[in-house]
Amino acid sequence: MLTGFTTPLSPLGKTNLAPMPPWHFVGDFMAIEYWADPSAVAAVLPPGLAPGTDPGKCAIFFSDNQYVSASGIERIDPSVNQYMECFIAVSATWEGKDAAACPYIFVDNDNSMVRGLIQGMPKQIGTVRMSRSFSLESKAAPHEGSGGLFAATLAHRDRRLVEATVTLENQVDDAPNRMLARMINMRYFPNLAAGLHQQPAVHELVRQKARDVARSPVWRGQATLTINDSPWHEMGALKPVKVGHGFRYTFAMTVDDLTTVRDLRTAMQK
Amino acid sequence: MLTGFTTPLSPLGKTNLAPMPPWHFVGDFMAIEYWADPSAVAAVLPPGLAPGTDPGKCAIFFSDNQYVSASGIERIDPSVNQYMECFIAVSATWEGKDAAACPYIFVDNDNSMVRGLIQGMPKQIGTVRMSRSFSLESKAAPHEGSGGLFAATLAHRDRRLVEATVTLENQVDDAPNRMLARMINMRYFPNLAAGLHQQPAVHELVRQKARDVARSPVWRGQATLTINDSPWHEMGALKPVKVGHGFRYTFAMTVDDLTTVRDLRTAMQK
Amino acid sequence: MLTGFTTPLSPLGKTNLAPMPPWHFVGDFMAIEYWADPSAVAAVLPPGLAPGTDPGKCAIFFSDNQYVSASGIERIDPSVNQYMECFIAVSATWEGKDAAACPYIFVDNDNSMVRGLIQGMPKQIGTVRMSRSFSLESKAAPHEGSGGLFAATLAHRDRRLVEATVTLENQVDDAPNRMLARMINMRYFPNLAAGLHQQPAVHELVRQKARDVARSPVWRGQATLTINDSPWHEMGALKPVKVGHGFRYTFAMTVDDLTTVRDLRTAMQK
Amino acid sequence: MLTGFTTPLSPLGKTNLAPMPPWHFVGDFMAIEYWADPSAVAAVLPPGLAPGTDPGKCAIFFSDNQYVSASGIERIDPSVNQYMECFIAVSATWEGKDAAACPYIFVDNDNSMVRGLIQGMPKQIGTVRMSRSFSLESKAAPHEGSGGLFAATLAHRDRRLVEATVTLENQVDDAPNRMLARMINMRYFPNLAAGLHQQPAVHELVRQKARDVARSPVWRGQATLTINDSPWHEMGALKPVKVGHGFRYTFAMTVDDLTTVRDLRTAMQK
Repeated sequence: MLTGFTTPLSPLGKTNLAPMPPWHFVGDFMAIEYWADPSAVAAVLPPGLAPGTDPGKCAIFFSDNQYVSASGIERIDPSVNQYMECFIAVSATWEGKDAAACPYIFVDNDNSMVRGLIQGMPKQIGTVRMSRSFSLESKAAPHEGSGGLFAATLAHRDRRLVEATVTLENQVDDAPNRMLARMINMRYFPNLAAGLHQQPAVHELVRQKARDVARSPVWRGQATLTINDSPWHEMGALKPVKVGHGFRYTFAMTVDDLTTVRDLRTAMQK
Repeated sequence: MLTGFTTPLSPLGKTNLAPMPPWHFVGDFMAIEYWADPSAVAAVLPPGLAPGTDPGKCAIFFSDNQYVSASGIERIDPSVNQYMECFIAVSATWEGKDAAACPYIFVDNDNSMVRGLIQGMPKQIGTVRMSRSFSLESKAAPHEGSGGLFAATLAHRDRRLVEATVTLENQVDDAPNRMLARMINMRYFPNLAAGLHQQPAVHELVRQKARDVARSPVWRGQATLTINDSPWHEMGALKPVKVGHGFRYTFAMTVDDLTTVRDLRTAMQK
Repeated sequence: MLTGFTTPLSPLGKTNLAPMPPWHFVGDFMAIEYWADPSAVAAVLPPGLAPGTDPGKCAIFFSDNQYVSASGIERIDPSVNQYMECFIAVSATWEGKDAAACPYIFVDNDNSMVRGLIQGMPKQIGTVRMSRSFSLESKAAPHEGSGGLFAATLAHRDRRLVEATVTLENQVDDAPNRMLARMINMRYFPNLAAGLHQQPAVHELVRQKARDVARSPVWRGQATLTINDSPWHEMGALKPVKVGHGFRYTFAMTVDDLTTVRDLRTAMQK
Repeated sequence: MLTGFTTPLSPLGKTNLAPMPPWHFVGDFMAIEYWADPSAVAAVLPPGLAPGTDPGKCAIFFSDNQYVSASGIERIDPSVNQYMECFIAVSATWEGKDAAACPYIFVDNDNSMVRGLIQGMPKQIGTVRMSRSFSLESKAAPHEGSGGLFAATLAHRDRRLVEATVTLENQVDDAPNRMLARMINMRYFPNLAAGLHQQPAVHELVRQKARDVARSPVWRGQATLTINDSPWHEMGALKPVKVGHGFRYTFAMTVDDLTTVRDLRTAMQK
């Protein structure tokens, strides 16, 4: 009998891209808060979300991550438990309260991509890179403290879509992942049967749930951010009109649940 | 408003990994018919399929492909319209007649991966390579005819999973893609909500439909095939106990439909 | 005892990136003749070469290749015997006669890179892609004849440096690889010892020699070509001011020799 | 005029794979000391080196690195300044004193590959992965201290060549990079002219020089190490017969010099 949490299902359940939750994550993050054209931000909101109270407010997150399942077996093979990620969060309002949505997200490992699709994040494969710091001072690495210059980049289909830098200044209590506190994601799985191409099998808004969340102290500083146009991606419409602070921190969490807050199939098929 | 056929949905619908069907495909194929342990083949059949009349019968297909959507715009960017693929088909019986299932399939482009998931094929990312022939005779390339030696390989998570060769002998009317004539795929999309991890949102058997199918003449010859074990994949259980003929041909088709033949959610939740 | 033609030398000589010549090559080519700013072309000529009689004349070549050494053992493993290549040839004059030089060349396999360095071609790693044609008519592939639209691209350090297309019109006797008939390459291997950083250990002009050369019929047509700037590459200075014809053909050759035409070390150290 | 330290030379010198030294490096290392068959170790020594006093003694090093040149401009683009590396060092005797040689070394960036060739290290492209630690405790990452389990892997030509783990136990003053203190490398650049295929243009033993060297505290622990055979690499001959301790530490240095200790061309051509 075929077992596993995701495809490929297999007799022993060792082949599935994402094993049965929980999934434990830790990552080093570089994030930048910025503002895009408010109409471009409104245009990427899932059905049912309204623009946020700070129109056009966005943040972009780069991270260098490791993950394991409950067995922890992935630990011995970095080809399985490592991935790089870049995503944009946009501010929104959901049921009258501040929320956020994630229109675009890139990872470099198909197991992360599949975990994301199931969580309602529209993951696709991209090339994400980010400066690392080291425990020794070196001209070759940024200092993890005041003056440290960190860079991050995203490429998709052979094109450099994003270039970003943060120069650390001081520790703060705040981080843009506060925006992620009330993230509304959208699970989506289409039908291929003729006549049903616009009636997905799964189309629902979900609230991400995380537990065992931990965050390191946060360094904040000046930031630069460029988002380029591409014929194969509309991320360029969310390019910055104003760039705020940049941040660097480490973040850990465990995921094994979510809450469906609205089934959109009925609405969309009317 | 967000549009597109798959995620990521976007305002103009230019970001989706798989655009609205139809999808037109063409590929050069190298295929090998072989027999695995019948109990290993039975163990990878989707629920509802019975073993085939020739127990243990399998075929492995490697292909070097291009695809375009109706607009044809992908033609100008090979990073979008090319992909390599490797999959195993196993013989089965469905509703009393010969059929086949695809337990494992690898591609090297995330857009192909997403198209496959929607068609009910459990695609994941792998590295697929296959010899090419050229219009000039050269020691560096196999002759597309008697004596031509073609090789193909699959790697997954930094491991060489499959090595195969075919040495062409003569043209035949037959090809192992006859096995694919009645392919029963399984669409599967899990739930992440606690308590529902084993109750998928989508779990259905589907019959693939293709139109505008074309096939070149088929060359057949002697074959070799090795399938290796891996801690991250159970494909090794389908290693050959006997290897049959190898084949080489070109194949084209258009896909924009499928038929659901059984919804498995009720059965699985009992 | 360590043996082999190139590093890594090893006891059995099976580890070297490039085995002992001869090397047999075959490739499908897409080429475009074009004109760049003549002063930019003059600036990339090796010492001793003068500008060509058609100032600014260049050609860019994309190819999808296979190679084997004398043993032919590479044939069974496409990860060893396949590579994609993109290079620019610029017109020049050498000892009073028409010649050409290759300032920039990209491949996607380190064994090809090392073969090139030894031949005097400044190979580096890039991502090269090119449309393929198939023996069946399909919307997904260009027709290998009148009307067929072929595309090729180059990426380097996550950036799309070149985008090109050729739409075939008619067969011709000519091809831009005529420019390559008298190619003057430059072998170069620096010293790292302090004080010698500008006095290379090897710095010589060489004439490439090929034997067993074969070429298919040549299709010619209209072409488009874009070369982009990058902070990590000066190829953008050779962007087209005028684009000529595009070409498609197959080419085969064997390499196991070259002729040194000038040792530049004396001249450069004066 | 063409400028730069390595190919590709270019008018502004911005295209060369390795810019003019100095090169500043920093990396996180995982290393394992082990013993291979002494005759296999003797067989990979460059001409002129004798076996070491502890026959068969080897060490394997994995590292996750950043590099910048004097300008530091690479800092803003991780695609340029990051690379992963894996190499084997074997014990040797040179002029009567303990020394070491590096028969095999893999990196994942062509700029690192070219720097290595110039330093006399036989670099080639491979896929190197290594566990990372994070500043937060997480099931997804090893603790940088007692009990922390780190893994590292090497793949080459789609095959997993090396798998290694280290479980940290205690801090020590020693590290296997002590073996690297008197490293004798071999610069090698062949001739392609017919008749000279076995008479390289450059063939010399060199002593690596590093300055501004810094090392973090060293954690030591139990190790596991597997080296696999491959048709395309003889590294398998150096597989462990006994595995010693594993180590984890950070290391930084600057390189802009080396010393030639013997020109091997005369000897080899006799």
